[in-house]
Amino acid sequence: MNLSKRITGMQESPIRKLVPYAQAAKAKGKHVYHLNIGQPDIETPSSFMESIRNFDEKVLAYSLSQGMPELIDSIINYYKKYDMEYEQDEILITNGGSEALLFAIIAIADTEDEILVPEPFYTNYNGFSSAVDVKVSPITCKAEDGFHLPSKKSIEEAINPKTRAILLSNPGNPTGVVYTKEEIEMLAELAKEYNLFIIADEVYREFVYDGLEYTSFGNIEGIQDRVIIIDSVSKRYSACGARIGSIASKNKELMKQILKLCQGRLCVPTLEQVGSVELYKTSEEYFTLVNEEYQKRRDIVYTALNNIPGVLCKKPTGAFYVVAKLPVDDAEKFVIWMLNDFDVDNSTVMLAPAEGFYATPGLGKDEARIAYILNENDLTASMDLLKKALESYPNRTL
Amino acid sequence: MNLSKRITGMQESPIRKLVPYAQAAKAKGKHVYHLNIGQPDIETPSSFMESIRNFDEKVLAYSLSQGMPELIDSIINYYKKYDMEYEQDEILITNGGSEALLFAIIAIADTEDEILVPEPFYTNYNGFSSAVDVKVSPITCKAEDGFHLPSKKSIEEAINPKTRAILLSNPGNPTGVVYTKEEIEMLAELAKEYNLFIIADEVYREFVYDGLEYTSFGNIEGIQDRVIIIDSVSKRYSACGARIGSIASKNKELMKQILKLCQGRLCVPTLEQVGSVELYKTSEEYFTLVNEEYQKRRDIVYTALNNIPGVLCKKPTGAFYVVAKLPVDDAEKFVIWMLNDFDVDNSTVMLAPAEGFYATPGLGKDEARIAYILNENDLTASMDLLKKALESYPNRTL
Repeated sequence: MNLSKRITGMQESPIRKLVPYAQAAKAKGKHVYHLNIGQPDIETPSSFMESIRNFDEKVLAYSLSQGMPELIDSIINYYKKYDMEYEQDEILITNGGSEALLFAIIAIADTEDEILVPEPFYTNYNGFSSAVDVKVSPITCKAEDGFHLPSKKSIEEAINPKTRAILLSNPGNPTGVVYTKEEIEMLAELAKEYNLFIIADEVYREFVYDGLEYTSFGNIEGIQDRVIIIDSVSKRYSACGARIGSIASKNKELMKQILKLCQGRLCVPTLEQVGSVELYKTSEEYFTLVNEEYQKRRDIVYTALNNIPGVLCKKPTGAFYVVAKLPVDDAEKFVIWMLNDFDVDNSTVMLAPAEGFYATPGLGKDEARIAYILNENDLTASMDLLKKALESYPNRTL
Repeated sequence: MNLSKRITGMQESPIRKLVPYAQAAKAKGKHVYHLNIGQPDIETPSSFMESIRNFDEKVLAYSLSQGMPELIDSIINYYKKYDMEYEQDEILITNGGSEALLFAIIAIADTEDEILVPEPFYTNYNGFSSAVDVKVSPITCKAEDGFHLPSKKSIEEAINPKTRAILLSNPGNPTGVVYTKEEIEMLAELAKEYNLFIIADEVYREFVYDGLEYTSFGNIEGIQDRVIIIDSVSKRYSACGARIGSIASKNKELMKQILKLCQGRLCVPTLEQVGSVELYKTSEEYFTLVNEEYQKRRDIVYTALNNIPGVLCKKPTGAFYVVAKLPVDDAEKFVIWMLNDFDVDNSTVMLAPAEGFYATPGLGKDEARIAYILNENDLTASMDLLKKALESYPNRTL
């Protein structure tokens, strides 16, 4: 009666495993600023709940496995704004971006196949892959390069006959990197040359700052049969609890096969789809306001980090994260120390140690992810706490 | 850029693949009575939507990966009525019973491992298993025996070193069988003797007729560390579109491991959980009324089937399905013929051919599943249509 190797070998969430320390700190009356999680504080557009409150079917029935046609239409219209043209059977609605990723991985990789992923990466890429016996093969990116991609040649060295796809988030979680058009085109070239799929997690598509140009894989010509776009309402509309994601691809055979997985789990919740139809109609103005807010926060965090001696952090340009190198022996120990042994006026701050975002053992040990999802005052206070903590941490390396 | 073998080799839903024929029939103006799907027409308790309409958080945030504590409490209280005692960390909320099944399979079986399943079975057992490279090993049950289990000895013959678990639904989908206490105890013995898990899909627990005693695996002593109970609000409260399921097990290490999968997909939708807290408080009276209704329907279908020459069908005692042996060459051809070429006063009926519910090739070819999920008048009309169709079907075997 043994448990499976794939589940016992699966990495525990590096973000969630320190939660007990935060709970203990709070139990002692300490205030904890949470910069460790990606839960935005922005209000969900009210259209979501309004449309759900108006739902009045007597029987809450199964919806279609592929998703509600109205929601797919709403997403088709959303993509049009980005010059991406999809038909009804080229989009599938999923239980969050999470299920979209899991289904994409199952569809393109068998047991022992490999998927290339730039590291540090969204930790669940590894989780989903190991759950279905697929191996994540890392492309190491460095804080010193602002986590941009290494050379084409060094990526090619990681490709072997078992490699099936390149999976990446752009803008990047946890790094906040926005890949340049040249980087996207280089990956597209690799996909063609080595016959790979590209799983493009673009759930942060709108979160790009400094007026930077954003290049979606959905806009690259000549590779659309190998591109799988992952999207979600979670961050885009601050509706993380809705769990509505999607897969889009022009590869109709792929979509037909993934539909079998969708049929297996019958359907996605009806009400959340009803609400998401409206979310995808949210005006452009919403993003302008939200982006202004995040850009301000990014500036606060970036400026503060660069004023702390020994911290290395290139300016992130997207999403709402940054990975910083800290002058500490071990970022996990440091985070635990901040929760257990440190406070200023009974307040402390929590970050996510970055080691769990790497597949290469040993990397990221002195790095942490900071999510700038609090208001300006709280962020300023948090950065001040971080500075003071780094000054008094007994195992600092400066 | 090949698709994975596991997805291309995955069986297409036998229930959904005939939908295009039904759509074509309807396009020609034909009325189709749908007895092919398990979508009940019973009203969802109004408490579900009422509690959701009162939800007024400004940010629809992630909920806990394990599920909302209030919902887990509500389920703990529900189980108490059946003398099943669970603690908070012994229940996990999932995206429907579907995700509960998938997670249970991943947790107890590696690639190439096997799971024993009485056939005919709920077709998605096979789908979930092949998606993660686990093999379904069938225990064949027969219409002549009312789909009760074969002897212990013949089940033992199907067990080998790769066997990890016995998976079954009780009451049974698609057969409507309710296993006797002796059958449940026999499986429990086998699980102990061969060191197996039991994945008990008990989503139809309340749907037991004729005053029959129901035995849950949650009530069998001495095996609770190897029992995994799957539940769902879908059929229980006619809330299929909510997609709220659960896993319950006294095996704390197993639950700790499955929690990693829950954390990987972050959480289950918040609103649907809020509504389900109330569903699990629904009064006993609700089940009494619903059961009376289903028992009446079962009687209509069972009596009608036994009045059709050449049909074999033992009395089903649970769920809302029956698998009948029909006097036809091929039930799938027959169903397509009823949709394409048959009508009485422009009406026809749709069943689910049963071959797809078997893993053993060739079995179930002359069987179909009938879901009695329509009101009495529609059911009576449907059975009349079925009788006439069987009289005029050109490839009948009588």
